[in-house]
Amino acid sequence: MAHQQSPNHSTHTLAQGVLRREPRAASRLLSWIENGDAKAIPELKEIYPHSGSSYIVGVTGAPGSGKSTLTDRLISLYRSQGQRVGVLAIDPSSPFSGGAVLGDRIRMQRHATDEGVFIRSMANRNWPGGLNRCTAEALKVLEAYGSDIVIVETVGVGQSEVEVEKLAYTTILVCTPDAGDKIQAMKAGIIEIADIVALNKADLPTADHAAKSIEMILSMNSSPGWTIPFLKTVAIEGKGVEELAQAIERHRSYIEEHGILKAKKIDSLKSHIREIIRRELYEKVRMQLPDEDELSRCAAKLMEGTTDPYTIADAFLKERRMTL
Amino acid sequence: MAHQQSPNHSTHTLAQGVLRREPRAASRLLSWIENGDAKAIPELKEIYPHSGSSYIVGVTGAPGSGKSTLTDRLISLYRSQGQRVGVLAIDPSSPFSGGAVLGDRIRMQRHATDEGVFIRSMANRNWPGGLNRCTAEALKVLEAYGSDIVIVETVGVGQSEVEVEKLAYTTILVCTPDAGDKIQAMKAGIIEIADIVALNKADLPTADHAAKSIEMILSMNSSPGWTIPFLKTVAIEGKGVEELAQAIERHRSYIEEHGILKAKKIDSLKSHIREIIRRELYEKVRMQLPDEDELSRCAAKLMEGTTDPYTIADAFLKERRMTL
Repeated sequence: MAHQQSPNHSTHTLAQGVLRREPRAASRLLSWIENGDAKAIPELKEIYPHSGSSYIVGVTGAPGSGKSTLTDRLISLYRSQGQRVGVLAIDPSSPFSGGAVLGDRIRMQRHATDEGVFIRSMANRNWPGGLNRCTAEALKVLEAYGSDIVIVETVGVGQSEVEVEKLAYTTILVCTPDAGDKIQAMKAGIIEIADIVALNKADLPTADHAAKSIEMILSMNSSPGWTIPFLKTVAIEGKGVEELAQAIERHRSYIEEHGILKAKKIDSLKSHIREIIRRELYEKVRMQLPDEDELSRCAAKLMEGTTDPYTIADAFLKERRMTL
Repeated sequence: MAHQQSPNHSTHTLAQGVLRREPRAASRLLSWIENGDAKAIPELKEIYPHSGSSYIVGVTGAPGSGKSTLTDRLISLYRSQGQRVGVLAIDPSSPFSGGAVLGDRIRMQRHATDEGVFIRSMANRNWPGGLNRCTAEALKVLEAYGSDIVIVETVGVGQSEVEVEKLAYTTILVCTPDAGDKIQAMKAGIIEIADIVALNKADLPTADHAAKSIEMILSMNSSPGWTIPFLKTVAIEGKGVEELAQAIERHRSYIEEHGILKAKKIDSLKSHIREIIRRELYEKVRMQLPDEDELSRCAAKLMEGTTDPYTIADAFLKERRMTL
């Protein structure tokens, strides 16, 4: 493989490779994004006009809720329909990102050789560009790679730094019966972020009790418009997965017909632009911060007990005339 | 109480109240810090010279490892020695911060009426000033309040955004036997952040196996200097707590004698100053970001498909001549 591809390497950009659906080009560009490498920017500019037509599905839920297994089943289903699928796993507990028990990981392997599937994990929480911006940019790569569906898997509801519901067009919240009391605590989150709620592991004895809690919470949602469907799934057996895909499809039609999809896309673009500007300015801030020597001198003054860090910081800022 | 205190309210600052060990003054100032309220700054300046003499102990570990119970036992022990104790719980699963089962919370209650104990939970992950700066500032308040010991409780090793080991002088890592394989995964973290390792719930049948894993990891640590003590505790029964306090004391003597405590304090001051400067500059950045209208206009251009967000961001920055 390496031998076949190398002759082209010098004559085309990574962006062109991505558009030609070369997995190695996509992987490499994603690594640049992950590392905050400035080389990614011209590539992203180049692929930008070729992105925007994938449908982005968010799968979110606590670690261990089985969202990876559900994602795995959705991949199979979409593949059987001939759709190309991209997966972005930002959950460190996801088998896609290497954080799972062996069985899970083996299950995922079956998609590894399918050229219609591209899976990328991004477990790094210290992205220089910020988690949301990196996610947004990674999605653009998966879109340009020709994915019909892109699934973003994240740990959810207050646990994740990614506001996946802002990037995804349809967000599935995966709950489990054993979450018990936590379902109550998730109340606000459920209604705010979920477009679809799936109770996975619905074959557990406590499933009925959990289902009642969820139904009660959903029934309290009096906001007009989309009624959040509530489905029971047993992802490991593939049960309920077809119904889930149908619910996604219904939601997609709903948001397309009501102009919500367009509004969501505009919101994503706005926050992407804002993140780029913020990032540029923060970069400049970082370069202006005092260096170790200066900080050591400041700390020495503080240790004498004659001043405080606020006064020192003030003096530093004034001395440098640091204003935007 | 409210009646007695109110006459003074207008005539003294919160800082003075903190120094007079008034719990309500401390609570209020901590709320200001938590909310990123600028009113906190002059108060912090005022208390600053009166802080710095407390000994700061970090207690870190996964949710459910029993670190709150251990903290609770340490409080009792220190109180029996006549020491004043402050507790800062930044772990959302801590009973101190309201995230525990009823039994845990009832246990903690016994300290609520002890005027030598001040407990504050800060579960908010969206602190405007950043988690580390808020923690550093909250610690200053607990110090000025006259705490001999301040215990900072956080979820640990890669799970927390607080780098508690940088703020604490002695960091205790609490492990449990049921963490099983996770202990292996924590390998680097154990050696990097722990000054003392406690295997809690050491009465569980799997404790011996876990103890062997931990001992093996610790034996691999060939760095010179402090040898990390490994203790078994059953916090709920108070077993091993005295030994833990002795280990803390030994570590304290060690770092005092080797100049490490002073170096740690200097490092804390340096990062505090840096955080204040960073924060001030970021605040200015935030004020310079495009507003909703400007973003909407940018997004509309993008939807036409003729440009990309990087070009738009560039134009925005150039137009505003935004340079530091």
